[in-house]
Amino acid sequence: MANEKKLVEAITSMEEDFAQWYTDVVKKAELIDYASVRGCMILRPNGYAIWENIQKVLDAKFKETGVENVYMPLLIPESLLQREKDHVEGFAPEVAWVTQGGLEPLTEKLCIRPTSETLFCDFYSNIIQSHRDLPKVYNQWCSVVRWEKTTRPFLRTMEFLWQEGHTAHATAIEAEERTVQMLNIYADFCENYLAIPMVKGRKTDKEKFAGAHATYTIEALMHDGKALQSGTSHNFGDGFAKAFNIQYTDKENKLQYVHQTSWGLTTRIIGAIIMVHGDNSGLVLPPMIAPTQVMVVPIAQHKEGVLDKAYELKKTLESNFRVKVDDSDKSPGWKFSEQEMRGIPVRIELGPKDIEANQAVIVRRDTREKIIVSFDELEVKLDEILKTMQKEMLERARTHRDAHTYVATNFEEFKDTIQNKPGFVKAMWCGDVACEDKIKEETSATSRCMPFEQEEVAKTCVCCGKPAKSMVYWGKAY
Amino acid sequence: MANEKKLVEAITSMEEDFAQWYTDVVKKAELIDYASVRGCMILRPNGYAIWENIQKVLDAKFKETGVENVYMPLLIPESLLQREKDHVEGFAPEVAWVTQGGLEPLTEKLCIRPTSETLFCDFYSNIIQSHRDLPKVYNQWCSVVRWEKTTRPFLRTMEFLWQEGHTAHATAIEAEERTVQMLNIYADFCENYLAIPMVKGRKTDKEKFAGAHATYTIEALMHDGKALQSGTSHNFGDGFAKAFNIQYTDKENKLQYVHQTSWGLTTRIIGAIIMVHGDNSGLVLPPMIAPTQVMVVPIAQHKEGVLDKAYELKKTLESNFRVKVDDSDKSPGWKFSEQEMRGIPVRIELGPKDIEANQAVIVRRDTREKIIVSFDELEVKLDEILKTMQKEMLERARTHRDAHTYVATNFEEFKDTIQNKPGFVKAMWCGDVACEDKIKEETSATSRCMPFEQEEVAKTCVCCGKPAKSMVYWGKAY
Repeated sequence: MANEKKLVEAITSMEEDFAQWYTDVVKKAELIDYASVRGCMILRPNGYAIWENIQKVLDAKFKETGVENVYMPLLIPESLLQREKDHVEGFAPEVAWVTQGGLEPLTEKLCIRPTSETLFCDFYSNIIQSHRDLPKVYNQWCSVVRWEKTTRPFLRTMEFLWQEGHTAHATAIEAEERTVQMLNIYADFCENYLAIPMVKGRKTDKEKFAGAHATYTIEALMHDGKALQSGTSHNFGDGFAKAFNIQYTDKENKLQYVHQTSWGLTTRIIGAIIMVHGDNSGLVLPPMIAPTQVMVVPIAQHKEGVLDKAYELKKTLESNFRVKVDDSDKSPGWKFSEQEMRGIPVRIELGPKDIEANQAVIVRRDTREKIIVSFDELEVKLDEILKTMQKEMLERARTHRDAHTYVATNFEEFKDTIQNKPGFVKAMWCGDVACEDKIKEETSATSRCMPFEQEEVAKTCVCCGKPAKSMVYWGKAY
Repeated sequence: MANEKKLVEAITSMEEDFAQWYTDVVKKAELIDYASVRGCMILRPNGYAIWENIQKVLDAKFKETGVENVYMPLLIPESLLQREKDHVEGFAPEVAWVTQGGLEPLTEKLCIRPTSETLFCDFYSNIIQSHRDLPKVYNQWCSVVRWEKTTRPFLRTMEFLWQEGHTAHATAIEAEERTVQMLNIYADFCENYLAIPMVKGRKTDKEKFAGAHATYTIEALMHDGKALQSGTSHNFGDGFAKAFNIQYTDKENKLQYVHQTSWGLTTRIIGAIIMVHGDNSGLVLPPMIAPTQVMVVPIAQHKEGVLDKAYELKKTLESNFRVKVDDSDKSPGWKFSEQEMRGIPVRIELGPKDIEANQAVIVRRDTREKIIVSFDELEVKLDEILKTMQKEMLERARTHRDAHTYVATNFEEFKDTIQNKPGFVKAMWCGDVACEDKIKEETSATSRCMPFEQEEVAKTCVCCGKPAKSMVYWGKAY
């Protein structure tokens, strides 16, 4: 069929050109469309529904730990952005400036938030007076704008959706605990819902967030061997508190600065889902996060009873599964291709012969395995299949990552690995930014993180040969 | 107690100064805080949680009717905004313009969306080709910016949160049906969840949305007798489709323009909740929408068993109610004031003597009625009380509105009513904008809507005395 060919042919194979494959998938799976403003994207229903599911799960997990949601303004006055020195240096070059309101020029220009530390600090300095006002554990779901030069759907766009948590605590210990707690929530969420294993660790000073004392990160490995920073959590110490004068009176009635954190996860994570699980037929969504988990595809739907049975199955299943019937007037083959392109975890094929035999055929999206199941067993089997699929997707992703994680003990070996074996490289580092700079310059790999789980893969820095301070994951990254 | 006095004294009484009472409530109930940008507000946890509940209910109701959520960019190129003539004239004077990205001036300035018709139209013109692509029933939850000169929390702010639905249909009839369907969803939601009765009707041409063929509205009456437009639904006909060239091939393979609608409800509705239900002790939230429905206030909580019992009650109740325990070290009186200020529908007072008697005291926020309930009956009674309260709040609001809805049959009577009796005035209108203009100029009242439920209160226009075309609700409005 001409149409079916068109849908499949539309995708470049990932072996041929991974970047083009990625772009094809996001377009053909109808996750996004490009907008009239360069570098901005439209999140279409298939794409936005993934984000809605991510929001739902994460928001509930946040709230279990005492997080409260707020909404801060979109615009930041220039003078406010400039209050913390490192922060403004990091962000000023990449913000969008509003200089005119209505028909009048503004007396002070306003930037569209690239992140909201300065707004939260300003707010906290107004509402925090006493130790009784602490902790403040606030979060917001919103979009931010960063004036990027080159953009790619989900991975780097001028505007993106995220959540940003901002907290204020009485003690440094509490702030550090919250920073790590949120990183763990991100990592667990990615593993359990998105089937993406994460390396958890700390960023080097060179790679940390503008204004942070410490940045923690979760790093994932994509199918092409490139790394993706997938979520970050920052401990600001009392740096912002001093710049914004956020003080409280403690129980002894003494003035103290608060200790702050912030942590964020963005729509970029949808890029990770695509690049970890996708294949040459399109997207593959982990069942736990898939907006539609089951697509019922009637075969010969014009024949009596077929569509009725399809609707009946949907009705039975929809209390436990997110299920749809594709009753459009397209051919079954076209519907299969579409279900595969969109990454719907399983389809149920249902034709007149199946109905006669009191059964249906379940087809897994990831393995293409076909499982014939009697109607009586359908619910139980479906649950089993989706759980197995979720588990195996994580296992495959972990196996792939581990198979593409290398060790290098000297610079020649390091360069050779980076050049010829896409993946993570574990190597020791002396702690000197000069070595980081040299590695980046000569290999275009960056330090992804100093993992919490340290291993001593050598005694000396992979770059300069001096005594090593820590083991670092290195890699080329998105 | 000094503290308690402070909290109560902080509110101006509504009889003394309604506007100040309103401002006091939004601040003291900690719904909002002011931000560093003029006219922008911070939605604090108490305020944002109300919006979250509104979102949850409305979003589910939208989806039941086939709505899918998307996310469109924040920025609109000037050329795109200008595509539909009436639309740009309506919005251009009140948008914020981005003229600089990073360190570079932009070649074309971009406005921050004041509403997203132009973006949706541009998108629809790309993705709609055939009748099979219709209808498109998309919605987004986001913030928009309008450069307002004078602002008030919730009611009129430079930036506000809302949802905006945008649909495209094959026929004019379908578009009209969708326009009315969404207005009804808004009206039902406001009545059933917010306990606010609405007048449903159509805006006059003077008051309709820039670019719409017809605008429908729901209008509520505040406690001070002023009207509040609370949600609108627009039928665009094929006007935007022609400006943006959104065409599809019908079943006969002929090119046709689509018919479009849009509809929105904003955080302004929180202002309505405050001004319809609030009293001189603060906010009063309808139980159906209150983030916290029940506050358990332990009395003499230092005494053995009191706090334990409070937590036990919370545990029993929390599967059916949104319940919290106020275990802070404030006095019970202070806690009562706070619960009242924040509008939490009921509190449960629980002291050692109550525990001994196997009972607790439920106090309704709206009527202050105290109901002694044995622990065994607590769940059943609480459910009953909250339902009664919800029902009576709607009844009171309706009674208040009806008591402040007047009829005027000639201009003298009209002017006298507007000046001396705050409320709605029902009066006939000839359909001429000159009369609307004159009424506005001489009384500062505007036409709120031509209600769906028409009554012939006179034969002639209240302003010019010519034959009347329809009955209109008039009033001073926020």
